[in-house]
Formats: sequence, structure tokens, C-alpha cells
Amino acid sequence: MLVFEYPERSQWPELLRRPVFDNTALETSVGNILADVRQNGDAAVRKYAQQFDKVQLDALAVSPAEFAQAAASLDPALKKAILQAKHNIEVFHKAQQESGKVIETMPGVQCWRKPVAIEKVGLYIPGGSAPLFSTILMLGIPAVIAGCKEIILCTPSNAKGEVHPAVLYAAEQVGLDRVYKIGGVQAIAAMAYGTESVPRVHKIFGPGNQYVTCAKQLINKDGVAIDMPAGPSEVAVLADETCVPAFVAADLLSQAEHGPDSQVLLVTTTPDIIKGVQEQVAAQLATLPRKDIAAKALENSRIILVRDNEEAMDLLNAYAPEHLIVACKDDITIADAVINAGSVFLGNYSPESAGDYASGTNHTLPTNGYATAYSGVSLDSFVKKITYQRLTKEGLQHIGSTIEIMAAAEGLDAHKNAVTLRLK
Amino acid sequence: MLVFEYPERSQWPELLRRPVFDNTALETSVGNILADVRQNGDAAVRKYAQQFDKVQLDALAVSPAEFAQAAASLDPALKKAILQAKHNIEVFHKAQQESGKVIETMPGVQCWRKPVAIEKVGLYIPGGSAPLFSTILMLGIPAVIAGCKEIILCTPSNAKGEVHPAVLYAAEQVGLDRVYKIGGVQAIAAMAYGTESVPRVHKIFGPGNQYVTCAKQLINKDGVAIDMPAGPSEVAVLADETCVPAFVAADLLSQAEHGPDSQVLLVTTTPDIIKGVQEQVAAQLATLPRKDIAAKALENSRIILVRDNEEAMDLLNAYAPEHLIVACKDDITIADAVINAGSVFLGNYSPESAGDYASGTNHTLPTNGYATAYSGVSLDSFVKKITYQRLTKEGLQHIGSTIEIMAAAEGLDAHKNAVTLRLK
Repeated sequence: MLVFEYPERSQWPELLRRPVFDNTALETSVGNILADVRQNGDAAVRKYAQQFDKVQLDALAVSPAEFAQAAASLDPALKKAILQAKHNIEVFHKAQQESGKVIETMPGVQCWRKPVAIEKVGLYIPGGSAPLFSTILMLGIPAVIAGCKEIILCTPSNAKGEVHPAVLYAAEQVGLDRVYKIGGVQAIAAMAYGTESVPRVHKIFGPGNQYVTCAKQLINKDGVAIDMPAGPSEVAVLADETCVPAFVAADLLSQAEHGPDSQVLLVTTTPDIIKGVQEQVAAQLATLPRKDIAAKALENSRIILVRDNEEAMDLLNAYAPEHLIVACKDDITIADAVINAGSVFLGNYSPESAGDYASGTNHTLPTNGYATAYSGVSLDSFVKKITYQRLTKEGLQHIGSTIEIMAAAEGLDAHKNAVTLRLK
Repeated sequence: MLVFEYPERSQWPELLRRPVFDNTALETSVGNILADVRQNGDAAVRKYAQQFDKVQLDALAVSPAEFAQAAASLDPALKKAILQAKHNIEVFHKAQQESGKVIETMPGVQCWRKPVAIEKVGLYIPGGSAPLFSTILMLGIPAVIAGCKEIILCTPSNAKGEVHPAVLYAAEQVGLDRVYKIGGVQAIAAMAYGTESVPRVHKIFGPGNQYVTCAKQLINKDGVAIDMPAGPSEVAVLADETCVPAFVAADLLSQAEHGPDSQVLLVTTTPDIIKGVQEQVAAQLATLPRKDIAAKALENSRIILVRDNEEAMDLLNAYAPEHLIVACKDDITIADAVINAGSVFLGNYSPESAGDYASGTNHTLPTNGYATAYSGVSLDSFVKKITYQRLTKEGLQHIGSTIEIMAAAEGLDAHKNAVTLRLK
């Protein structure tokens, strides 16, 4: 990790620069697959499953027998862990439920908002090296709490047509029974446009590689909502003399192992901890199964020494990290200065992996600086808040001339008439 | 308006089809303007102001003297109306404030969400035939309540370099003092990328023509958030025998006058009201200053007769109208069946224009069927909800093995180590 001591503010943009990913080159090939699935449905889905995933799929939907087999085969300790995580995520997301309180803005003018579930949502869980069953909890649990009527899940199978049992167990426990063995661009297309087997949905959630990301961008232009724009995962750690260098190193590495393009940043006010963290990173790295990936991510990672907590938070707010760990004695005070971050971890005993799996917060978070304007996934992501108003005749009398005057000034006479006629 | 009696469900998609707007053809020319402003800043902004708006701009920012002059020149009755509307919108949007309650998901595992204002936001108010000062209230008020630190507003001036006094008065009353006389694509570019005069923002709000809409789509791909995708405005009215045909006609016309591409739909269970509404539409239309626009919109508009309220709501939920007026005796019961709509107006005394101006609800709403997955603008649109977690050592002990088991099963050993090391 490169160390930068007391850089000038003018250097910050360069220091905090993220790698730029341009999907434009992929748009044509991804667009062609989307169009093919839109036109040819399941047949096109099967064709691409054969081509990309080397699998000959008969039924696209996972059968009840497959769910039962997954539950029977899974390690009981892992089942218990999944259920514990599910409990915590449910508790936190249920607390986000709102009731629409009625506000009388003037006598006889009642207004309220009502959260109404998005009727049809699609969740995408990538395949690849690790089965991301934790993401099923993070997306499926709020979808169920929100009351979405149709929740479907697409995830690629292996070459034998099997889905990892932890994925099926997590889905079943959450209450998702419509799981399709479809991956990649063809999965996004199937959920966006519908096929004979897969119903069309209104919003698509979930992580994916650059092809999936590009597909989500394109179907979003076509009117299907998506959870948020995507980018490589990242963590920033703010640490002072009260941190434990071994813990900080472990947190940096747990981000670095995600992928060679992961972002890792250590910001500190305390020069003395830097050497200790570096030594711990080196020592812990050597023992990791994914050490090559982590080492690659660390090459682009930075340690930045700053003067005080205020400068630290200015820098971190400029960076807008997906995950921010605050391992400082004044963690609670510092937390109040956070403007831009996805999720914040306070103190020495709150590793990022707690939020990744089981503290209860959501791990689907804004990367790539999007934390300046986007929130992570929450119950809100699965509802619309519809506004209502109900005016009595007296209410309209109170407010009528205001509407008439404003409508006339905007040159919209029919808007005015709609009031005038009612008050005649 | 075309009348369809008891259409089969299979005909609904055709009946409810909206005009398709494809911005692809504009992307090159809009992209060129965006790139020019990004590169050449104020000089490019001035060039396009000259080219498109025929105005030679010296200062881009509205001066304090211009604000004062606007306030002095504006009709006192209009000022009073603006202040009344402002009051109601403030009351409704303030009630949307949330405090982040701390949830203990397990002993020693505390999680909470905190709404934090988006630091920098840009509001766009189009010029053209009518000064849309009401939209300043709808966007500026929640931005101020949220606590956004930098709120800027762009709106085109007339050829003399003047902004309509109602626009400046509304901006000043809301608390916006940074108003720039910039319109069109160049305004979106200036706010997205920043120029010498205009600061760069994280999220852009506001309506506009197809060029502005295309510019917002393109800067959104570049990482700047936008309020929501745009389309022509629309209303659906559900009416039964308790409706007043003259009121229904007035509501249909107040939508139709927005533009020739506006959408107007009447759904009814009561054949008897159709003739009355049609007669009232014809009679009221004749007196409207914008009758040509409204007549054009009505050409594509439909009256659909259905069997009962249940069928009506199935049809309306399939349409997902921006505005839904329920002029029925069971309006409250019917309101509960709404799944897809932007804003709902209940009873005979709740015209759409009440919500457009002054009831307190927001008038920036999802059009074009986006109400299936998007909410209208609210206080939420101006904040991120950052999640926090703080675990004690005991908390991590409670949850540690869950995290370790899940991380190991996902093949992420460094994630597991971050816990193991802390519990050693």
C-alpha cells in the first residue's frame, strides 16, 4: 500500500480517483442478447446458457424436489448461521416500516403518504467462484417484508444444472419459491421483458459482473427500475492510536479479497500505527486462500496520513466510501460528521464483515462515489410511497383562491377552472 | 374522446399503450453540448444561450437587485398565494422527517439509519410559455427541509436576460439565492460538471423538454443522480354515478391543456355519466385559451366503461397513472386497492390542480407507467439514509460464529479472519 503523508487538498482528487469503467464497448453485444431474449424468450435463454455456462437446461425453474434436497444436504451449522443472520436482518428491516400518518395542511385538506410494495421484483444472484447466499437474505428479506406479490430470483446453475444448496436453502427460508437457473445478461433480459417461464418484473436488484451491470443499465433506459448503479466494492478505514493494527489490517484485507479491482483506503491521524498495519497486512495476506486477488487490490490501495479528524472527514466525505470503518476513540462524534458513505462501522469490534452478513444492516450499498446521492438497499427500495389527498368542500374553499391565482399566473386556465367550477 | 365499452382484458395493453418517445436520435447532438460545456465551461454556456435562447448573458447569476426588483413588482395577491402554497407544502414535507431509531438486533449489536442531506443539488425550471414557479416550491422546499448545503437553480431568461418575477420571488421565499439564467441542455451540463460560475452538484431535479430529458439521462449514466425518468403528464379519473360530470370534465381538461402529448383517461362503471362528461368537455374546451393544445391531447384520450370497481382498479393499476382521481362514493375503500399511481385525489372536491399547487403533496410524480416502481419527489429524494452499526465485544461474541461460518461458506476467508482475530 502506498503511503501519502499530509497531502495538500489540491492533491486529493488524484489520490481518491477510482478506476473508470466504460461499458460502452459492451453495449452492442449486451444489447443483442437483450433483444434476442426479448424476441425469442426461453429458447434464447437456453441458447445462451449453453453458450456461456455450458449447461443444457430442461426446466428453468428450480423444482420443489431440488429445494428439499438442498435443505437436506446443507451443513446444519451453516443452516443455523443463515437463520441467525436472517433474524437480525428481519429485525432491522421491519423497523423501517412506516405508517402513513394523515396531515391536515389546512382545515379540510388532508394529505398522506402510503408505502405500497412494488408488485413484481426480480433478484439476481451471480454464480462464479462463491455462492452469494448472503445477498439473497439482503434482497429477499426486505422484498418479503414490503409485501411484493411476485418475487423471482435468477441465478446461474453449474454445468450439471445444479444450484448451490446454500443458495436454495437461503431462498426457501426467506420465502422465495420461484428460482430460475438463469445467469448473466440473459437473466436480466428475462426478468425485464418476461419469457414463457419467467414473469416480467418492474424492478431488478442484485450484483453482477460488467456484462450484468451493462445489461441493467440498458434495461433501465427501457423503463425497468434497478436498485442502483454498480461499481467495485470498497472500504475506507479511519483509525487513530486506539485502533488495533491487526484488526485494521484484517478489515482492509477482507475488502481486498473481493476482487483485483477492489478499493482499500486507510486514513489516519497517527503516524505510529502505519508500520504496524503494514506488517499485519503482510503477515495476514500470506495465509489467505485468495491472496493473489487481495495482493492485486492492495497494489492500488493507499494509506493517507492527515492532520486531524476534521481533515480526515473532509477527505473521506470527498471519497464517499461504500463502507467506512471508524476505529477511533471519538467514534460517535466522528460519526456525526459523515456526509457521504454507504454504511458506517463504529469502534474496534464492528468489522465490515458484521454488516456483510449478520448485524442486520443491508450489504447492498452505493460504490464508486455514488454514496454522495444514493442510499443502500432498504425496505424503501421495495416500495413506492404514493401520496393521497382528500379535500372537503370547505377545504377547497380555504385553498381555492390560492390555486386559482397560481394557475392563472402559470397560464393554465383549465387548472383554474377545475377549482372555480367546484366552488360555484 | 374515444369510448370503449367493456373491453376484454386482452385488449387492455393496446388501450393503455402510451406514445413511445425515443431519445436515441437526440443523443449525439445533446452529447456534444454536454461535452462542450464540460470542456469550456461558462464560455460554452454563453454560446448556447446566444444560439438557442437568443440572449447575450453577462452575469449568469441572478443579482440581489434582480431579486429585490422581482419582489417589488409582483402582484401582492400572487405573493400571498405563493406563501400559502409554501406553507402547506412545508407542513406536509416536514412531516416526512425521520429520526434514526437505534435497533438492537442482538445484545451488543446496535444498528440504525440516519437521513443525511445530499450535499449539493441542482434544480432545473424550464422557461417557455409559462413560468413554472410552482415547481420551485415543490423542489426547493424539501431540499431546504432536508438540509442540503448547496442548492442551485437554473432557469432560462427571456431574450432581454430577465427571469420572470414569480420565479425569483418563489425562489427567494423558499430560501434559494443561487439562481443562474441558464436553460436547456447547457443548464444540465453546467450543474452536472460544474463551470466557473456554476458549482457541480450530485443530483439534478426538474422537468424539461425532450432535450433536457435526454441530457438528464446522459449525465445520469455519467454518475450524477436524477430525480426520476420523465414522460408526458397524465391523469386517470375513476368516476361513478356520484361524480359531477362538469368536475370530471374540468379535471380531464386541466391535464389535456399541459401539452398535445398529455394523456387523459376516464374509467367508469356507470354508462349514464359518459354523455354528460363528453358534453361538458366540449363546452368547457371552447372557452380555454389553450384549447388547441387540449383538443389535440383529447384526440388520443379514452373513456373506458368497465363492469365494477374491481375491474376498474385492475385496469388502472395496469396503467399506473401519474395522477389518479377517484370520484366515487366508495373512494376511501377504492383507495386501498391502488397499487400503481403517483398521487391519488379522493372525492368530488379534490381536483388534480389542488395537488399541482397547494394541497401540500408534491407535484413531481412518475409518469409513463413508472409509478409501478418509482415514487414521486419527497423529502426522501433529497437525503441518503446512511446505515450505522456499533458492536461491543460481547455483541461480536454473540454474532461472531454466524459471520465466520457464512464467510467461510462463501469462500471469503479474510472476512472470517476479521472476526476470528477480534475474538481471540
